[in-house]
Amino acid sequence: MAPILTNSAEAIVSGQRDDLENGIVRVKNPHLASMTEDFLYHFDLGTKTHNLQAMFGDVKFVCVGGSANRMKAFAQFIHMELGLNGSDSNIMDICAGTDRYNMYKAGPVLSISHGMGVPSMSIMLHELIKLLHHAKCCDVTIIRLGTSGGIGLEPGTVVITGTAVDSFFQPQFEQVVLGKIISRSTELDKDLAQALLNCGNEIADCPTIIGNTMCTNDFYEGQGRLDGALCSFSNEEKLEYLKKAYKAGVRNIEMECTVFAAMCHSCDLKAAVVCVALLNRFDGDQITTPHEVLLEYQMRPQKLVSMFIKKQLGLLKYN
Amino acid sequence: MAPILTNSAEAIVSGQRDDLENGIVRVKNPHLASMTEDFLYHFDLGTKTHNLQAMFGDVKFVCVGGSANRMKAFAQFIHMELGLNGSDSNIMDICAGTDRYNMYKAGPVLSISHGMGVPSMSIMLHELIKLLHHAKCCDVTIIRLGTSGGIGLEPGTVVITGTAVDSFFQPQFEQVVLGKIISRSTELDKDLAQALLNCGNEIADCPTIIGNTMCTNDFYEGQGRLDGALCSFSNEEKLEYLKKAYKAGVRNIEMECTVFAAMCHSCDLKAAVVCVALLNRFDGDQITTPHEVLLEYQMRPQKLVSMFIKKQLGLLKYN
Repeated sequence: MAPILTNSAEAIVSGQRDDLENGIVRVKNPHLASMTEDFLYHFDLGTKTHNLQAMFGDVKFVCVGGSANRMKAFAQFIHMELGLNGSDSNIMDICAGTDRYNMYKAGPVLSISHGMGVPSMSIMLHELIKLLHHAKCCDVTIIRLGTSGGIGLEPGTVVITGTAVDSFFQPQFEQVVLGKIISRSTELDKDLAQALLNCGNEIADCPTIIGNTMCTNDFYEGQGRLDGALCSFSNEEKLEYLKKAYKAGVRNIEMECTVFAAMCHSCDLKAAVVCVALLNRFDGDQITTPHEVLLEYQMRPQKLVSMFIKKQLGLLKYN
Repeated sequence: MAPILTNSAEAIVSGQRDDLENGIVRVKNPHLASMTEDFLYHFDLGTKTHNLQAMFGDVKFVCVGGSANRMKAFAQFIHMELGLNGSDSNIMDICAGTDRYNMYKAGPVLSISHGMGVPSMSIMLHELIKLLHHAKCCDVTIIRLGTSGGIGLEPGTVVITGTAVDSFFQPQFEQVVLGKIISRSTELDKDLAQALLNCGNEIADCPTIIGNTMCTNDFYEGQGRLDGALCSFSNEEKLEYLKKAYKAGVRNIEMECTVFAAMCHSCDLKAAVVCVALLNRFDGDQITTPHEVLLEYQMRPQKLVSMFIKKQLGLLKYN
């Protein structure tokens, strides 16, 4: 196992100590301060072409998810839930100049798509964290709202990630930097997870638990599915692996949580992962649940996170 | 290094020997034949809901690329280039039921987006290879048309991948399957690469080379960029890594080629990777070239692949 780079092991760059004290989102890159321009290529936004502080300075919550349609729907939903002025149908894609990601803003909430898999999430997060830093955003909470495969759960169960683990059930994110493997901690904010669980428990028909979430780099072989174009293992071997995962506390599998947890942790961003399980992998591999039922499942993380945001903003009381 | 699974080391499943002989696209999964239905979730297409053979049986060329807009533009371009009937503006997204991928068909050419990074490419390829197999497609050639960062190249140079290598410059794709690391060969078709190079050489203002392509799992730290949200190395360390890559024959860096090469090789699909270099990484990290110039660069792989397809179909003569 590669050494774990803890926050304290990474240099706190001059000037960033101030950022930490006043809650401004930090970057962990000493080179950034000396750049005369920073163009966020995959957002089609830049420090010279856009007034990022005016556009994003009031952001307090960033919600991210794989699907562009889902994140647009979430922006419209939270716009309505927060009782913001104007029609939710007027919410425009801020990244319309590129088709890599979609970004929507509803008051203090930013809603962004990140595509599928660790690399796609990682590009988005690099540019998002820089954007929040350039915009001098303070005290930001970031939540991934996703879909996942459940292990030993009723389909439709919402899993709030306790610990994000890799395919070996380890709480780490390994990455190659300049030809060397480095490993980062995937620690998530425990208080935030508990606050989200409490919200889930208040919503009718929204079974919610805290459990470990496994992140894989492949949906088929990588998650022990028997129905990909390639498969070289038996049903028994698959079930043995899923049982081992269950025993290690894994309750759902998706494809982004480790890099999300690691990068947010490195930059001291409060982060959580809230995914609904679309199926129970002990029962099969294919997602055959009717479309309307899947849509209702996908609304559950949105409702839960909306309740959390409303409570944080004082629009709803804590029980 | 994990053991390399060669094609011969993977079992040829009963019935697939016939597929091999008559050129039908093969899967390497003994479980698939016994499934009564196969629903390709991320395409929103299925064997029970769609007549895949009627829809796709005539496909001979599959072109894939990261961006949905670019792959739509390519479908319209190749429609026009092949002189197909009907207006190119009528080409519809076959995967309109989902926003995970976009798919367009122009005669024998399928054009599909795969998003960014290995996991997103891998999901798409699993479902694409199954689709081609279910549709009984024969003698299919698959080409990735992409963008990349160049090493020691003039921006705008088109690189046809000789060998797809990982971040350690090795010609392999490593993947975790049931908690074990397996490694697959990333061999690509040499004759196809040469035929594509010949096309590039016939096109004016389209500098084209064959070189090694490095695949990384991150765009910033993973490619030695100094401008991400996280960076813990110096400009000198970065340049040292890029020089090592150059010395190993690497001429460009992108984020999908190893899994693309490995999966196509495993399923005996003729495959090639054709990427334009948007910048020379020895000169910097940010992509600041004007939008119009970038658009012209991105057309170069499209023109090159279009010429190749027209020659293969007998619409253009080989020199």
